[in-house]
Amino acid sequence: MISFTTRLRVEFYDTDAMGVVWHGNYVQFLERARCDLLDFIGYNYYQMGKDGYTYPVTKLDLKYIKPAHFQDEIEVITTLVEFESFLKFKYLLKNAKTGEKLATATTSQATVKVGSSTLDFETPKVLQDAFKKAIK
Amino acid sequence: MISFTTRLRVEFYDTDAMGVVWHGNYVQFLERARCDLLDFIGYNYYQMGKDGYTYPVTKLDLKYIKPAHFQDEIEVITTLVEFESFLKFKYLLKNAKTGEKLATATTSQATVKVGSSTLDFETPKVLQDAFKKAIK
Amino acid sequence: MISFTTRLRVEFYDTDAMGVVWHGNYVQFLERARCDLLDFIGYNYYQMGKDGYTYPVTKLDLKYIKPAHFQDEIEVITTLVEFESFLKFKYLLKNAKTGEKLATATTSQATVKVGSSTLDFETPKVLQDAFKKAIK
Amino acid sequence: MISFTTRLRVEFYDTDAMGVVWHGNYVQFLERARCDLLDFIGYNYYQMGKDGYTYPVTKLDLKYIKPAHFQDEIEVITTLVEFESFLKFKYLLKNAKTGEKLATATTSQATVKVGSSTLDFETPKVLQDAFKKAIK
Repeated sequence: MISFTTRLRVEFYDTDAMGVVWHGNYVQFLERARCDLLDFIGYNYYQMGKDGYTYPVTKLDLKYIKPAHFQDEIEVITTLVEFESFLKFKYLLKNAKTGEKLATATTSQATVKVGSSTLDFETPKVLQDAFKKAIK
Repeated sequence: MISFTTRLRVEFYDTDAMGVVWHGNYVQFLERARCDLLDFIGYNYYQMGKDGYTYPVTKLDLKYIKPAHFQDEIEVITTLVEFESFLKFKYLLKNAKTGEKLATATTSQATVKVGSSTLDFETPKVLQDAFKKAIK
Repeated sequence: MISFTTRLRVEFYDTDAMGVVWHGNYVQFLERARCDLLDFIGYNYYQMGKDGYTYPVTKLDLKYIKPAHFQDEIEVITTLVEFESFLKFKYLLKNAKTGEKLATATTSQATVKVGSSTLDFETPKVLQDAFKKAIK
Repeated sequence: MISFTTRLRVEFYDTDAMGVVWHGNYVQFLERARCDLLDFIGYNYYQMGKDGYTYPVTKLDLKYIKPAHFQDEIEVITTLVEFESFLKFKYLLKNAKTGEKLATATTSQATVKVGSSTLDFETPKVLQDAFKKAIK
């Protein structure tokens, strides 16, 4: 499946009183990395919205392996693992300098037609086509 | 003018690697306190929106006097100081236990009619009436 | 096992451009609720630190069921499910007015002795004693 | 005085239910831009800490001119305007594409010797030397 690597720097506002990145802030890192992958595929949130769909996150899990610190450079390797019934991404976060694993994560997103409040059991054709084209 | 006191607890996620509340997080404390005062007045963001107006923040200033720490109780004393041409609030933040001043702040908000992108030079009558009634 | 219910209000800064609480902000709700339960037990982060231990979050998972909106009141029912080898909490988030389920979550935390960088395979006796006393 | 331009992208988590960047999140943009300028000068928070000093923010003001939206590219032009008695930076935020002014800001930071809790009336020689060298 298709992957993309995002590089980001830990900012001071990302840290907590333990001197490390607050565990909840990794969810921002994941979203940033996911948007990068979607930009790379060429079908991002903006186009999804224009086509009349939103993709709310329905599941999120994170495993924390090593802490990250202020000014660390982090690499997030994001992989699209499912897009036909829903969107699923896997993430591996590493210290960009040492290569040490920091965390792993997965997120799932469902398709919602704008104006509707029910989830679709399949992603729309327009998204499937865009993703298939990118994977080829 | 009308005042309201909000009491809040410093959460772990509010802190930074210096072991104190990250200075930018005070903006959240101000918004929370401002919404409490508006609820108290009986004319809050929800009713503003229903009446067709939004009130974007146009100015913000903060002075930091003493740091706050995880689990501190903070009192925010919010005062409405202007509501006829725009909305202006003053804030005093104190350690609820020791009474020490932590910070002072002011925020200003302009009136924007929903669907328009220009600022009004006066707040709408519906807001002025609601605020005048509360002040009496 | 021991449970505690935290009630919180959705603030404007919790929302995103979809008009709902941004999914990552639930991690703050969980931490707030977890700290409330620890305060209730009588052995919180402050005492853990004084006793020479920290409890970094090692795992987090969240399922999102219904969105929450600005000014919603949310109830977080937190349950301690494991404290002998590590700390594990379960969470149920509900709309406080309608009773609708919004999300479920679990978090796990390991024991780290301050100054050390290795995880212990058992939580310290001082924590186990405090928790056992609270549960009785 | 010395200036540096930071370019950043508005992330989805930066937005609020009005569909624009939540006003408090600009404080993060300022910190990120300020750290970039300090890196450029070659004397950043890390070196300040090693030399035994911290620089807490004591004042912050922001003026909001136009809203920013998800996926906008923002340019933050940061200028060091004072470093002898304290640190003061000015910021101009622009839409990187259209060149429209989004906001202006200033921040002030005092010198605190680590372990002390009083503010110094002058920044330390080591910082002044580093800054003077960069400006030449």
